[in-house]
Amino acid sequence: MPLSEPLQAPPQTVSVALGERSYRIHIGSGLMASQVLLDRVDARAQALVVSNEKVAPLYADVLMKTLSAHFRDVRLLVLSDGEQHKHWATLQLIFDALLAQQADRRVVLYALGGGVVGDMTGFAAACYMRGVSFVQVPTTLLAQVDSSVGGKTAINHPLGKNMIGAFHQPQTVVCDLDVLATLPRRELCAGLAEVIKYGPIHDLEFFAWLEAHMDELLAGVPAALAHAVRRSCEIKAEVVGQDERESGLRAILNFGHTFGHAIEAGLGYGQWLHGEAVGCGMVMAAELSSRLGHVDRSFVNRLAHLIARAGLPTQAPDLAVERFLELMRVDKKAHAGDIRFVLLKGPGGAVIQGAPDGLVAEVIRSCQRQRLPSDLAQSRQA
Amino acid sequence: MPLSEPLQAPPQTVSVALGERSYRIHIGSGLMASQVLLDRVDARAQALVVSNEKVAPLYADVLMKTLSAHFRDVRLLVLSDGEQHKHWATLQLIFDALLAQQADRRVVLYALGGGVVGDMTGFAAACYMRGVSFVQVPTTLLAQVDSSVGGKTAINHPLGKNMIGAFHQPQTVVCDLDVLATLPRRELCAGLAEVIKYGPIHDLEFFAWLEAHMDELLAGVPAALAHAVRRSCEIKAEVVGQDERESGLRAILNFGHTFGHAIEAGLGYGQWLHGEAVGCGMVMAAELSSRLGHVDRSFVNRLAHLIARAGLPTQAPDLAVERFLELMRVDKKAHAGDIRFVLLKGPGGAVIQGAPDGLVAEVIRSCQRQRLPSDLAQSRQA
Repeated sequence: MPLSEPLQAPPQTVSVALGERSYRIHIGSGLMASQVLLDRVDARAQALVVSNEKVAPLYADVLMKTLSAHFRDVRLLVLSDGEQHKHWATLQLIFDALLAQQADRRVVLYALGGGVVGDMTGFAAACYMRGVSFVQVPTTLLAQVDSSVGGKTAINHPLGKNMIGAFHQPQTVVCDLDVLATLPRRELCAGLAEVIKYGPIHDLEFFAWLEAHMDELLAGVPAALAHAVRRSCEIKAEVVGQDERESGLRAILNFGHTFGHAIEAGLGYGQWLHGEAVGCGMVMAAELSSRLGHVDRSFVNRLAHLIARAGLPTQAPDLAVERFLELMRVDKKAHAGDIRFVLLKGPGGAVIQGAPDGLVAEVIRSCQRQRLPSDLAQSRQA
Repeated sequence: MPLSEPLQAPPQTVSVALGERSYRIHIGSGLMASQVLLDRVDARAQALVVSNEKVAPLYADVLMKTLSAHFRDVRLLVLSDGEQHKHWATLQLIFDALLAQQADRRVVLYALGGGVVGDMTGFAAACYMRGVSFVQVPTTLLAQVDSSVGGKTAINHPLGKNMIGAFHQPQTVVCDLDVLATLPRRELCAGLAEVIKYGPIHDLEFFAWLEAHMDELLAGVPAALAHAVRRSCEIKAEVVGQDERESGLRAILNFGHTFGHAIEAGLGYGQWLHGEAVGCGMVMAAELSSRLGHVDRSFVNRLAHLIARAGLPTQAPDLAVERFLELMRVDKKAHAGDIRFVLLKGPGGAVIQGAPDGLVAEVIRSCQRQRLPSDLAQSRQA
């Protein structure tokens, strides 16, 4: 793939095959002004754009303008920014806005923002009048490559992340790559965690591509970002198409998330970004996989090295081990209080299983120590 | 059907045909101690029984005892009683209890109570970890003949009834007819509103049966109640099986509910019981049908007479006409602020359509006047 090619190619499309709930992910430049926003949407209806205080000033105008040419009534709701607002009280603001607008069942919600806006808007759409349509317009790398695709919607509960939610597929997903240019570096890095994720669990070739192009991704080279977004969406679409409601396979997409959710909840939502927690969580899950004999230590180091290069933490925060375990026991994958981890099974494959508490505690303690530069250096030869 | 027959027959079963979401409604005596409670349920899991302060003292013990013989962990949550508690704060108590129990995805919720408990427990089951199983154990006539069947779950929003919810089918519905013996008369009457509903919209023969047996129903004759519950469930199952998500036909089951919801919201939830509001709402909807030429005045009177005999109000409360209209514009069937009514189309049939505001206002005013005894008497000859 020639990285010098300018990003003026027509938008690309990735299909999510889910029977009558099938939809397309549109990936390209300038899409906030494009008709793809109306894909599978009844534009005779009302629309409500839900965004947050950081994103709305940047993109709400152009999106509202595009939609206003079609819908008879388009309104904007601006929420507070951040994971710490992903709870019922904020969700209620969406319902209040819909009812103030006298929105009927044909209303279309547009989620303009990152994962938090997408999860909350999607859940509001799932519940309003028992289900209305929505469109994902993700404005972070993380949301484009992961959370906007697949229909998982949710809010947090004080005792657990994404505990209250629904499976509710969007009508379409519109990934305008132009937004990545204005993304703060910290959020770009956080998004890379979910991009990296697809490699170790499913596609080692993509993992190697990421190792080769990490510098371009961090520098925001459009063609590199376009490829990372498209390949991530392809893998996610393939997995979701096989297991929409996570009765099996889909759970592998939670690689790094069991440890990661515990970090987020333990430190308080919003301290570490979701992607940062997942980055560190992947290192921890890989470490556990290695101690169970599923994967070589050299691959753990190789993964930790790539995560560190992406500007993400690889050292676990100083949470008490017991607190870590307690938080993981309410993970949605747990059965009867037994934590179930997504573990690597050889590089490029994943398996879901439990592990003895003692071993998990060792992993937590070991990951709370700083990873030695020699470990990371070693991995370059691997 | 011989009304003198004692109610010792084996439980009857009505099937709701919804593909992989199909389930059975069990109707009979002594079912709180029966294995039918475990129909389609994974009894290795945990269970949470959700009830209210009025129902729990009567039936929680026997239900908990039956479940405890199977589940490894059964707990009870007792909520406040009444429609005015059917909101987010109460729903949150269910999530809190599930997380305190460290309930995993295999948990089974049991809704032990009337429509409010069933709607909230079902919605909690729809949302907890994006969906877990639940069983309806309705303890009011209204819940047995209507709200526990069909998978509609919801909570109220200050601006509209059942505005926030989900379609989430139960694993099974267990209608223990013994509970009807302890039901306060006012709630028995309220339940009869939803029984009567099935006649004018779908089954005139059943309507005539109700006219012939209303005295037995009010006296609590078991065999009469058993027939009313079974026939109501059969009709509901038939309609839901054809249109699970209310894209068309199912909406006829809302006969009387557009006016009824406005009455409930306008007076404040809990002032009139849901069934009382629906009773009066059916008279209003029939009146509107008649003014549109869909049904004879004599049938309106016949219906009003039966509703009055069931101990239900037929005179609309003194809400301002404009307030009535405003509340109906946020009804879930409305399109673009145009209220859509379920109207009778000849006795035994229904149609969904709008009506001019002026005509609706006339209907409201006319129904706010007391119905003359001569109108009701006239209908006896009809």
